[in-house]
Formats: sequence, structure tokens, C-alpha cells
Amino acid sequence: MPTPVISEFSLINQFFTNATQLRKHVALGIGDDCALLQLTDDEQLAISTDMLVEGQHFFPDVDPHALGHKTLAVNLSDIAAMGARPLGFTLALSLPDSNPSWLQPFSEGLSALANNYSCPLIGGDTTRGPRNLCITIFGAVPEKYALRRDAAKAGDDIWISGKLGDARLALGCLRGEWPLDPAALAQTRRALEWPEPRISLGLALRGIAHAAIDISDGLLDSLQHILEQSGLALRINVDAIPRSTWLSTQPLPIQRQCTLTGGDDYEICFCAPPSQRLQIKKISENLNLSATRIGKMTLCDTDHPSIVLHDRAFNIIEIDFKCFDHFSNEY
Amino acid sequence: MPTPVISEFSLINQFFTNATQLRKHVALGIGDDCALLQLTDDEQLAISTDMLVEGQHFFPDVDPHALGHKTLAVNLSDIAAMGARPLGFTLALSLPDSNPSWLQPFSEGLSALANNYSCPLIGGDTTRGPRNLCITIFGAVPEKYALRRDAAKAGDDIWISGKLGDARLALGCLRGEWPLDPAALAQTRRALEWPEPRISLGLALRGIAHAAIDISDGLLDSLQHILEQSGLALRINVDAIPRSTWLSTQPLPIQRQCTLTGGDDYEICFCAPPSQRLQIKKISENLNLSATRIGKMTLCDTDHPSIVLHDRAFNIIEIDFKCFDHFSNEY
Repeated sequence: MPTPVISEFSLINQFFTNATQLRKHVALGIGDDCALLQLTDDEQLAISTDMLVEGQHFFPDVDPHALGHKTLAVNLSDIAAMGARPLGFTLALSLPDSNPSWLQPFSEGLSALANNYSCPLIGGDTTRGPRNLCITIFGAVPEKYALRRDAAKAGDDIWISGKLGDARLALGCLRGEWPLDPAALAQTRRALEWPEPRISLGLALRGIAHAAIDISDGLLDSLQHILEQSGLALRINVDAIPRSTWLSTQPLPIQRQCTLTGGDDYEICFCAPPSQRLQIKKISENLNLSATRIGKMTLCDTDHPSIVLHDRAFNIIEIDFKCFDHFSNEY
Repeated sequence: MPTPVISEFSLINQFFTNATQLRKHVALGIGDDCALLQLTDDEQLAISTDMLVEGQHFFPDVDPHALGHKTLAVNLSDIAAMGARPLGFTLALSLPDSNPSWLQPFSEGLSALANNYSCPLIGGDTTRGPRNLCITIFGAVPEKYALRRDAAKAGDDIWISGKLGDARLALGCLRGEWPLDPAALAQTRRALEWPEPRISLGLALRGIAHAAIDISDGLLDSLQHILEQSGLALRINVDAIPRSTWLSTQPLPIQRQCTLTGGDDYEICFCAPPSQRLQIKKISENLNLSATRIGKMTLCDTDHPSIVLHDRAFNIIEIDFKCFDHFSNEY
């Protein structure tokens, strides 16, 4: 008999709630990009952990230099989505051997990013076993500026940094789901293997955005978290979602799958009042990073679905893709 | 050609030093039981991470209830050895499936210990893959009381909490290295599978001990860290090392192997000036936990080895066991 399938979120909720009884120093526990510990009266420590498993999150033959970069980048992305400043990280490594021809480029990719963001390796553990890379990262954020998932307001614009879907487009080609010409694969593969964490954007959005989330598990999945935790609904113009020229030339179903549920996009989705549009445009120009309005937070209405997707002509779009979930059988 | 073997410590030193460039908020980086981040002028955050891999750190058929306990206990032990108070932890899990008959008892073992020590689960990550459990734990300690490895003084007594070697004795029996009668296995297996972190002892030693270390990688290995980081030498009376009645009836070579290099003993080795002996006796009585003097920190002398082991008659003991090292071929 097959083991029942349980999603990542229900797994934590079902089995580990007894371990999550919060204490007063825990300002925010399970369920956001980062947990928040109260450091001082007005400063909080943002903490996030991510585990990357060979064969699940990366191919066995991936360039170890890129993998070192990505292992830290995915964690920095959680710090960015909280509006926090990176402080440092721990690295636990399980490796089948200690082969320098793998370790040297892996550490170079990791170290370069650590130094770029002044985020040093402060502790670790190494062991023999199937390849598994677990980073726990720490950042600092003033309590009033933390970009939590539960603070979006009805009427907020929904914004996306950068472009979505390239990582999923490259992954689909590498998996044989669809063809891609070599130039397009080379370009989109950069999004998959060398994601750039949006730390500067997260810091710039302090006091500007109400809420933010890292969308690496897929845009729809991330939006679901925001609306549930903020007690709101939302609508998205799927034609407004920014995508690369490589993705724009693909069939529409692939474009929508890659942008809406693709995963591995280390961009920030954030919610901000319309009064901040000019300010956000300035931030985007200063950082040389696009910021695109794709929708609106709305009040809950039990007669309507909580997520409404429409095209540029306001025709409702029905999507039946499953969101990315490490414990579902669908991915 | 076999891959060259590199020890855990040289692996970090060889490959990751570029990532460890410390910043002023990092009071202590790689190389102690915990890293220390400066929270306020006088408070530090102690951080430690440990990864447990199936087949390497635990048997595939281990009782999941015990494993849940142990996964958190080994991390609490690092917090204890720093003299810190537990604040919370993150849990990253890689599992082959989400079978409730494993997850339920695992979470119960983990949650019971988390609640005992007011140390809540504050964040996590779950993914599909070979079974791998990675906890990162946080504690708080006033800067002046942190029990670092580099603060032992010449003339300090070397103390051990509890009894050593039972975990290794049980492991050896389970691996078929030596026989053990069923009653002795049942008793010593508790030390292997249900270690009790010495949090209360760590807190009580604030201001009493100069230095402390968790000895779960083996006593000799731990002493080596203390003497290197404190710039000292030491001598140990191996006959003074406390051991259980089950271990005491084993052949002397097994006793010495289990107590000196066995590993998986979640006791604290600490260094304190002789003026604190009476105080340490009181602490031991209050906590109902034995504390035994086993040796002395001494000044370095290039004419003598840095670790001298002798028996009760002061005969020098030569030991050639390799210390526990996840990347050596010897274990």
C-alpha cells in the first residue's frame, strides 16, 4: 500500500504543533519566510533554514560552483523577503566523499556570495552520507519594518521583482518536457543555477511595502500564503506577469505554467499601497531591477474564490496546475 | 583511485575559510560548540547546527520516538556546553516518505524534549530524499559567562559530568564488535538513544568554570580542541574517568576505547580553578548529577606531548585509537 501523501505545510501542522508552543521571545514562528526572535525592544533576528537534496533540488552533475552559489542564494532570498540585513549562516553538509575537485568550486561559489553580502559562515557540521546541503541563515530587521506575510492590506498593489518562469523553462528542457534551442537554454539556465538574492530590494522596501514573500515555491503557492495569513483575497492579471523574451515565445500554456507555478524564481512578491507607486518606481530605477504591478489585494468575499486570475481583457482564467510541493506526488 | 580522506576540521579549514571572514557582530565563528553573535552590549546568541544521517548516525530501524528525542538532545548539548539558555530551534527534514507511523512518534520524542527545555520549534523545511535530520539551535548567554573552548587556564581542574562510554559499549554490541548480555545492552542502549542534555549544569557553571565542551565526538578529541584553543597542555588520569558498572566489568581495552574515543556521550567536560571544587560539589548534589575530576590543564612544554594519559599509579598510557571523525576511514 502506498504511503499517504501529505503536503509540506500539513506535515508541519499535523505532526509538529506540540513542539511549536511559542515563548515570549519568539515574535514569529513557523509559517513565514523567516522566524523572528526578539533581540531587543525594537530589533528582531530573522532566521530561515533550507535543505537541498541531490536528485530533488539539483542534478547530480550540476556545476558545483553554481551549486555553492545557489545553496546560499536561496537562503539569502528568504532574508530579503523579510526586509532583513544578512548577519551570517551555518552550513551542514552531508557528502559521499571529501573530493577536493567538488569541494573547491562549491566553496568558491558559496564564499563569493557570502562576501558579496557580508554574510559570513559562522558554524557548521560535516558528515558522510547522500549529498545534502542545509543552510540556516540569520538577519537583523527593526521590528516595525519586518516584511511579514500577514500584513498585506485590502487595496494594496501586488508587485513582482524581475522576471518569472525562466528557471522552470530551463528545468523543463533539461528534464525533456519540452525542447528549447541551445541559446535559450543557456540563458534561462542562469536563472535556474545562478539566482541573485534581492537583498537590496528587501532593504529598500522597509517602510514602503506592507508584506512580502519569496516566490521560490511558485507564485500561486506564495500568493496563497499571503492571502491566508493576511485574511484577504486577491486578483492577478496573468498577462502582466513579467517574463523573458525566451519564455514569451513559448506556447501560452508553458508560459502560464512556468510563471504561475514554476518555482525556483528567487524574486520577491510584495504588497504596497497605491500611494507608494512613485517611490517603488524610484527604487526599481536605483537598483536597476524591474518591479511590475500584477494585481490587487481585495477583501474576502465568500461568494468568490480567494484567488481570481484574469487576462488583460479581464477574462477569468482557470488553472489546474498543482503547486510545487516536496511531498506531493505531482511534481 | 580512492578519493583522498580529509578530516572534518581540515575540510572546513581547507575549503571554507574564504566564507568565514568575520564581521564585528560575530563574537565567535567556526570551531566551538556554538557560534556567538553579539545581540546587545552584554548578551550573546549561541548558535549550533547538527546533521544526523541514516546509516551514519542512527540505524534505519531505530525507534523513531527515541530518534526524535536524540535529534534535539544532541543540539541542546551544544547549547549546554556554552552555558547558554535555549531559545528555540529550526528543523530541516529530508524523508523518503511522509509515513505517519514514523512521523508521529518522531515528533512526540522531539516535542517532549522541546517542551521540557522551553525550546520551541520556530522554523523548518521538509523535503523528499534519503533520511536526514538537521537542527539548528539558538540560545542566549551573557557575554562574560559564555563557556568557550579557548578560555581554560593552566592549573584548572578538568571535570566530567555523568559517566562515559556506555553509548559506545551499546553501539559495539549492536555492530557485533563485542558481546553484551541482554540486561547490559538494554541499560547502556539508553545512553546511546536517550541522551539527556546537561542544560542545568551549563547554566550552573556560569561564573564557575572557565571553559567547557560537549564531548559527543569523543573525550580525547574534545580535550584536543580545548588545549589547542586555550594554548595549553593537559594530563588525564584515565582510571578516574567515571564509567557505569556495565562498562567497568568489560576488558580494560574496551573500557578505555569506550571512555576515551567512544563518542556519543552527551556529557560536559569543563575546566575550573581548584578554588571552585566545593562549589562544583554543591552544584553536582543539587542537580543529582555526578561531576568527577579527571585531570589538570598544564602549561605547554615542547619537550612533552600536549596530552599525557596516565593510570592511577601515574604510569603513562599509550593510546593509538583514532578519534571519531566523520571523514576518516577509521571509524
